[in-house]
Amino acid sequence: MSHRVVIVGGGFGGLHAARRLGRLPLEVTLVDRRNIHLFQPLLYQVATGGLSPGDIASPLRWVLRRQGNTRVLLATVVGVDPRARTVQLSDGVLPYDSLVIAAGASNHYFGHDDWAPLAPSLKSLEDALEMRRRILLAFERAEREPDPQIRQQWKTFVVVGGGPTGVELAGALSELARDTLRHDFRTIDPRGTRIVLVEAGDGLLRSFPDALARRGRHALERLGVEIRTGEAVTEVTPRTVTTSGSQGLWTLEARTVLWAAGVHAAPLASIVAGAIGVDADPGGRLPVTPELTAPCYPEIFVIGDMARVAGVDGRPLPCLAPVAMQQGRYVADAIERRLTGRAIPPFRYRNKGELATIGRAAAVAHFGHDLRVSGHLAWLLWLFVHILYLVGFQNRVLVLVQWAWHYVRWNRGARIIGQPREGSTGYAGEGPW
Amino acid sequence: MSHRVVIVGGGFGGLHAARRLGRLPLEVTLVDRRNIHLFQPLLYQVATGGLSPGDIASPLRWVLRRQGNTRVLLATVVGVDPRARTVQLSDGVLPYDSLVIAAGASNHYFGHDDWAPLAPSLKSLEDALEMRRRILLAFERAEREPDPQIRQQWKTFVVVGGGPTGVELAGALSELARDTLRHDFRTIDPRGTRIVLVEAGDGLLRSFPDALARRGRHALERLGVEIRTGEAVTEVTPRTVTTSGSQGLWTLEARTVLWAAGVHAAPLASIVAGAIGVDADPGGRLPVTPELTAPCYPEIFVIGDMARVAGVDGRPLPCLAPVAMQQGRYVADAIERRLTGRAIPPFRYRNKGELATIGRAAAVAHFGHDLRVSGHLAWLLWLFVHILYLVGFQNRVLVLVQWAWHYVRWNRGARIIGQPREGSTGYAGEGPW
Repeated sequence: MSHRVVIVGGGFGGLHAARRLGRLPLEVTLVDRRNIHLFQPLLYQVATGGLSPGDIASPLRWVLRRQGNTRVLLATVVGVDPRARTVQLSDGVLPYDSLVIAAGASNHYFGHDDWAPLAPSLKSLEDALEMRRRILLAFERAEREPDPQIRQQWKTFVVVGGGPTGVELAGALSELARDTLRHDFRTIDPRGTRIVLVEAGDGLLRSFPDALARRGRHALERLGVEIRTGEAVTEVTPRTVTTSGSQGLWTLEARTVLWAAGVHAAPLASIVAGAIGVDADPGGRLPVTPELTAPCYPEIFVIGDMARVAGVDGRPLPCLAPVAMQQGRYVADAIERRLTGRAIPPFRYRNKGELATIGRAAAVAHFGHDLRVSGHLAWLLWLFVHILYLVGFQNRVLVLVQWAWHYVRWNRGARIIGQPREGSTGYAGEGPW
Repeated sequence: MSHRVVIVGGGFGGLHAARRLGRLPLEVTLVDRRNIHLFQPLLYQVATGGLSPGDIASPLRWVLRRQGNTRVLLATVVGVDPRARTVQLSDGVLPYDSLVIAAGASNHYFGHDDWAPLAPSLKSLEDALEMRRRILLAFERAEREPDPQIRQQWKTFVVVGGGPTGVELAGALSELARDTLRHDFRTIDPRGTRIVLVEAGDGLLRSFPDALARRGRHALERLGVEIRTGEAVTEVTPRTVTTSGSQGLWTLEARTVLWAAGVHAAPLASIVAGAIGVDADPGGRLPVTPELTAPCYPEIFVIGDMARVAGVDGRPLPCLAPVAMQQGRYVADAIERRLTGRAIPPFRYRNKGELATIGRAAAVAHFGHDLRVSGHLAWLLWLFVHILYLVGFQNRVLVLVQWAWHYVRWNRGARIIGQPREGSTGYAGEGPW
């Protein structure tokens, strides 16, 4: 019987591992509770109506359909038994010889899970659609609100988190308000929208070199975004956000709060931690060996946002797609090497650069010490890299067409206010008609 | 003060009325509970993963943004007071001088509303996404089901209704199973999918000339669809569908039932009927004068799926987009004529033809007595007409790209299994991960 590899998760790490294993004489099973691979770096464009969910999602079965040694299982993983070498599903058991755990991360409200319904975040397609619904609805509410104070609350948006996601989201939101929606309303002027970006640390884009981070900040300010660094959110209510900083407490009246502040390894991480006998770090990430395996179980690999791996500078590697992709390919090679009796070199992350876009035709990018760019050139690079890494040729064409159209006409086509999810607040669209 | 026109509904009728009124010195208000115009004839392509919701939806505000005399109101209409000349919203009152009621139709289960959760239908984007979820999930369940009888139930789909929607849905479903998903599974062979089309009347596509309807039937049979005409559905359970016909009762084991059998005017129609003192017909449609006005209220127009209007042959006009569009433009002209003191000719529907597509590169079309086509030419016509009537240039390009891609590669990009809506059954994707 051939060697059975089970991969938990079809994100960047799991999918790249599966594809690399496709040409080997193995039995590969990719388990995911969703049927799609999601291109998370563009989720903020779904949240701001620029792209449709289908544009950034590829069915896992379709991506892997030509790999005869690989099957895809739509299932929920509830546990791992490292001694029996099985994965427990909610409706079955799956034996493995090698296991790759790559279930990614979920949102992190820093102990304030009660803020989740008030401040939607951005990890799943459903999150993005809920965010889009709230953003578009806020303008609709403002248009119909007679009380000027409440109207101003609807016209005020708070983005929490000054990393790439928060910066890109705030930039896209500003363009949505100032350009796309410019002629759409009769009572309000969407150009008067107030967008406040709150970051607890002392600067934006802190993973970028200082000079680039400063340029990113200026680009965002030119788009009219108010930036408040060094302020941590201490309270969120349906109508206010309160922050605490060196100036003391500050309360802002705002009815839409968008959460882009930190991730936590998926809940499966703590189940795995218990099973393999390790302690997760405060971010829920699991410690691994230099070969990305669990300390006492060399046949269990943990990769991507679930693994705590030190980089060359000793700091843990960031939760980014390139890290997960490289780790996915690494474990595929490690499994092959082990089966053919070759030595496995430790994992080394090659930082090929980092990119963030700030609205239309502005971005910052750095590729090691040699190349740092900002402005139009960085924006073109950003475009190129994101199109390149989208899975599926059709998705690439669709995204390109929509970006081109958006660039020429300022339009954002996917501005649908969907039905609210259970337990969410706001306009329900229910009634006799 | 200028003449105030209120339009209830942003579908084909309401939107075409609003656009035609854009150049007149009037105050136009378009009220809809959704913020988008939906191209309903392509909803079945969303349900079968061929298109994304954003491709067939256009924000109403965006479509009408350059019409300075028009405002769009996202609101729910709960009543009409024809004496006070006001529309009651769930949160306000809207006075009018002329009123256009165009709220469309909703699903009709012929008195069996309890079937709705078992047999989703196809009127809204949410309906289409729920249908897509169930279709894709059925294949996933079949893939993992060890019991061959239950597996066969998951591989059996019943489409109820033999009009254009049912025929197009069954054709697309067959192509999804036999072509798109062909290489996607390892346990089941999707080409063995059983698709049964049930129609209570004695033929399919009865609004088409007989010869064309027969060709449509043959095209569908070539795609492997089982057709059962003259059989009315008498019972739907989670695992079975029972029909009654000349052969007596017949029960089929199937876990996925898709409803495409008949529409009923939106619930607002019965509220309006009470307010203006008329009786709705069994389909909920309101009787109108030859000028499409309410019998005793010439300032109230009722159009589209809500109005019962006789055609030249005396039979009521069908619930189709071209009818609603022509009526929308007609009432705009009628309002203009009335304000300038000119006579209003009665509404006359010009039947420019009817089209239905049956899977890849096959369709039937008729344009009056002179032109009847089927096969490839009809399919190209179908493509052309649908692209032409899509609102928004961007949507046209996006749909064309996806159709071209689908034609070349058999791919259907938007195959996302979303989170289930409240109260729906099936795999929830919940759990630790």
